[in-house]
Amino acid sequence: MTDTAPDLTRFSINQMTVKQLSLPELTTACRDLGVGGVGLWREPVRAYGVEAAAKLVRDAGLTVTTLCRGGFLTAVDPGERAKALADNRRAVDEAAALGTDTLVLVSGGLPAGSKDLGAARERIAEALAELAPYAEEHGVRLAIEPLHPMFASDRCVVSTLAQALDLAERFPAHQVGVTVDTYHVWWDDRAPEQIARAGAAGRIHTFQLADWTTPLPEGVLNGRGQIGDGAIDMREWKAYVEAAGYTGAIEVELFNEGLWARDGREVLAETAARFAEHVVQPHGG
Amino acid sequence: MTDTAPDLTRFSINQMTVKQLSLPELTTACRDLGVGGVGLWREPVRAYGVEAAAKLVRDAGLTVTTLCRGGFLTAVDPGERAKALADNRRAVDEAAALGTDTLVLVSGGLPAGSKDLGAARERIAEALAELAPYAEEHGVRLAIEPLHPMFASDRCVVSTLAQALDLAERFPAHQVGVTVDTYHVWWDDRAPEQIARAGAAGRIHTFQLADWTTPLPEGVLNGRGQIGDGAIDMREWKAYVEAAGYTGAIEVELFNEGLWARDGREVLAETAARFAEHVVQPHGG
Repeated sequence: MTDTAPDLTRFSINQMTVKQLSLPELTTACRDLGVGGVGLWREPVRAYGVEAAAKLVRDAGLTVTTLCRGGFLTAVDPGERAKALADNRRAVDEAAALGTDTLVLVSGGLPAGSKDLGAARERIAEALAELAPYAEEHGVRLAIEPLHPMFASDRCVVSTLAQALDLAERFPAHQVGVTVDTYHVWWDDRAPEQIARAGAAGRIHTFQLADWTTPLPEGVLNGRGQIGDGAIDMREWKAYVEAAGYTGAIEVELFNEGLWARDGREVLAETAARFAEHVVQPHGG
Repeated sequence: MTDTAPDLTRFSINQMTVKQLSLPELTTACRDLGVGGVGLWREPVRAYGVEAAAKLVRDAGLTVTTLCRGGFLTAVDPGERAKALADNRRAVDEAAALGTDTLVLVSGGLPAGSKDLGAARERIAEALAELAPYAEEHGVRLAIEPLHPMFASDRCVVSTLAQALDLAERFPAHQVGVTVDTYHVWWDDRAPEQIARAGAAGRIHTFQLADWTTPLPEGVLNGRGQIGDGAIDMREWKAYVEAAGYTGAIEVELFNEGLWARDGREVLAETAARFAEHVVQPHGG
C-alpha cells in the first residue's frame, strides 16, 4: 500500500454491489470517494425513474459503464418470446437514456421441461437478430455474458466465452460483443485465448470482476466474493483483457449477503481499496 | 413402462447413493432387486474391513464397478504430497482387494493461498507418474474424474474432460483414463467430442450418472439429483459413450440429503426404476 490516493481511474462500481444504497446515496458516495464509473441495474433505475436517474448520474458527472441487464431470450412459447423481446427493447431504450453504450445480456436458462441446451442457444441467436439492429439504432452495444456453468439450467445456457463469441460473431462487433467476468470464466483454461479472440474483433464490451470464494451459498447466486478474498488472480485477468486491447472501465460487481448487510458507503470504500490493492498495484506493490 | 422386470444388466449402484445402508444391507438389497454392480467408497469399506467387505461382495456375486476414490494430489508441501501418494497407493491396494479394476480419482483443489490452477494440474501429472505404474502392477486403472467447474477451487482443479484427457494421455490407457459423469460434464458443448476422443483411446474407465437439479444446496456438494428429476438427457449421454465404444457398467452416484433421509432400500428400488425408465428405455418407451 502507498500513502497516496488509490488510482481509481478505471474503477466502476456496479450498483448491485452496494444495493443497500439509494441512487442518490450511491452517486454522492461515488463523488466523495472519487469513483467515476457506475454500472446500473434496471430495477432500481426504473423504481427511481429512468429520466430522473439519468439526470442524477449526469449531474454527478458519473460515467454509466453498463446497464444490467437484458436477455432471458430462451423462451419457446411465442407469447413469452415476444414479451422478452419487447422487454429487451425497453432495456435498450433505458441504456440510451442513461447514456451508457453497453447493455449486458444474461441469456436465460432452459425452458421448463426442456433438456436441450443447443436449441436454447439457437433461440438466443434468433432473438439477437431482432434486437441487435434496434440496439445499434440507439447507440447501444449488446454484451453477451457467459455465466458460470453452474447456472446453465436455470439462468444462462451460455456457459463459456467461446459459446458467447460463437453467438456474437454472427453480428457486427458494434452490435454484439461479450462481457468478460472473472467470476464466470476463471476456471476455464480456454478463456485466455477466447479473450484474445474477443479483443481482436473489438468485442470485449465490458470487463467485470468478482472473486471466487467457497463454500457457495444455497442457490449459489449471491456468492460473488469481495476482490482479494478468493481464488482468482485479478491482475492475471486484467493482463489478459489488456493484452487483447481492452482499455475500458473495470466494473466490480458483487452479489453477497455479507456485503449487503453492511453499511453501503463502507463497502464501497472497501471495494475501491481492494481494487487498488489487487487489480491496479503490481504484485508486492 | 412395461410390465416385465426392468433391464438392470448394466446398472450399478454407487454406495454413496444409499449410504444409509450398511454394507451387508446394501449387498442384500442388491441381491433382492437383481442389481449386479456396486461402486464402493473407501471410508465405509475400511470401517467394515477391506477383506471382510471383499468377501461380502464376492459372496453376494456383486461386481465392484469402481472404488471411490483416490486423488487429492495438488499439495505443494512435500510432506503432504508424500502422504497423499501413500494414501493413493493404499487406495490401489484396496481396489485390488475388492476385485475392481477402476479407482476413481478426484484430483484436488487449490492449496491454501494459491491461485494457480495450471500449476496444480501439473502437480497432478507428476503424482500420476508415480501412481500409474503402481496401479498397473495391481491390475487397477486410474480414472481421472473432471468435476464441475463449481468445484475448481476447493475440490478438483480438473474441470473438463479435455483437461482430464490432457493429463491421462501422458500415460498408457490401461494405466490412466477418465470418469465420465453426466453431472459434471452435461453443460459442456465440447464434452461429446471429448468422449469420442476418450473412447477411441480406450480411456472411458467408468460412466456415472446424476441429474442436474436446482436450486443447488449450500456448499453444492450434495445436490446431485435423482435420475429424471433434472435437466440432463440421460439417453443422449449414454449414446455418446456407446458411440465411443463404451460397453461397461453405468453407475448411478447421487449425493442428496433428501435421498439419504429416506429408507435406503426404497431409494435403491426407485433409482433402479429411474434407470430403467430414463436410461435404458427408448424415448416414449
